[in-house]
Amino acid sequence: MTLQLYTWWRSQASFRVRIAVRLKGLEPEMIFVDLARDEQLSSGYRELNAGMVLPTLRDGEGPPLVQSLAILEYLDEQYPEPPLLPKNPRSRAHVRALAQVLAVDSHPLIVPRVRKYLAEELHVEEAARMNWLKHWLEAGFQTFEHMLSRQTRTGNFCYGEVPTIADICLVAHATSAQMLYGADLQRYPTVAEIFQTCMDLDAFIGAHPHQQPDALATA
Amino acid sequence: MTLQLYTWWRSQASFRVRIAVRLKGLEPEMIFVDLARDEQLSSGYRELNAGMVLPTLRDGEGPPLVQSLAILEYLDEQYPEPPLLPKNPRSRAHVRALAQVLAVDSHPLIVPRVRKYLAEELHVEEAARMNWLKHWLEAGFQTFEHMLSRQTRTGNFCYGEVPTIADICLVAHATSAQMLYGADLQRYPTVAEIFQTCMDLDAFIGAHPHQQPDALATA
Repeated sequence: MTLQLYTWWRSQASFRVRIAVRLKGLEPEMIFVDLARDEQLSSGYRELNAGMVLPTLRDGEGPPLVQSLAILEYLDEQYPEPPLLPKNPRSRAHVRALAQVLAVDSHPLIVPRVRKYLAEELHVEEAARMNWLKHWLEAGFQTFEHMLSRQTRTGNFCYGEVPTIADICLVAHATSAQMLYGADLQRYPTVAEIFQTCMDLDAFIGAHPHQQPDALATA
Repeated sequence: MTLQLYTWWRSQASFRVRIAVRLKGLEPEMIFVDLARDEQLSSGYRELNAGMVLPTLRDGEGPPLVQSLAILEYLDEQYPEPPLLPKNPRSRAHVRALAQVLAVDSHPLIVPRVRKYLAEELHVEEAARMNWLKHWLEAGFQTFEHMLSRQTRTGNFCYGEVPTIADICLVAHATSAQMLYGADLQRYPTVAEIFQTCMDLDAFIGAHPHQQPDALATA
């Protein structure tokens, strides 16, 4: 079996998948695609990923897998242990909803291609672009904290006592916010605690942007 | 069992869930939340949906279900027939990825709260806001068409011969593009054919924005 992950150290969606493969005990070959150099626009990469976005996962023969949330579900179905989702449908829906508050309602607004459109097509100044990033990332935190703080299902992790895709998305989101503008997680007490719990685990530590070979190469 | 769906006729995410419940043969009570009047910001609605977005599904007792993609998965797990996803993990990943190309990479950029931010915070003129909408919706079509046209898995529907969550997201996306700027689907031949196939089915017809009681009430 050959497992290959196309990733970039700063990519929030790549970070999610890097965490998941480590939680599953998988060690894919990492192939680096530098979004700062537009390497995702090469025709070779487009053959793998029609949207020209990260990440892409190859798992043996067969078509490449794209879209980070779809890849997380695939990994959980194909490599069931340890599970990244709870068992019953309503709990699964809750965990998926938490993940999507960040990965669907927030992250798509701050990706490089959107920031580029704001700058180049709409001529939005740098300070206003930073306010845009903060606005949507903080909105994600607010909703997430509100959802967590009202739930008896919240434990040391977003759902109970083991990490799920909600924790994966939270850590990736929070790390983007820290890297982009030094976000203060203490404003969101439940978020801050869960983030710390996750960042004590090897899978989260090893997947962190600053631990990636392509980050170290550009440092 | 009481099933209640909070919906607005123009909401693309609500449209997805309206199609899914009809495909499953479910008939939830529809509760209308008018985003044009900011009804989603009421404290009552926020109790149900911390993100103050549509849709929300209530299924009997227990916490409300939020986030349309999570709700689609819930409906498929809780009410398995007819299935909205294929059986094997790689095919499921493909269908989910198709859905996410539209629901994650495109739709979050065109929702009312984002258009409001562009207008009120960034003072983007109406013509440039329309270009923004077109840009991200057309980018979604392009990627989707590219993915469909290269796949032997594509049939009369996005995957094979029955509708899945990919078809649901495609029809909702295409309908938004038609309503917002009269999008020409013929530029995307595979998309156009599948859209027509879906729009011959009662579940898609009955869920269409223009068929909703709250649309008819405002006409």
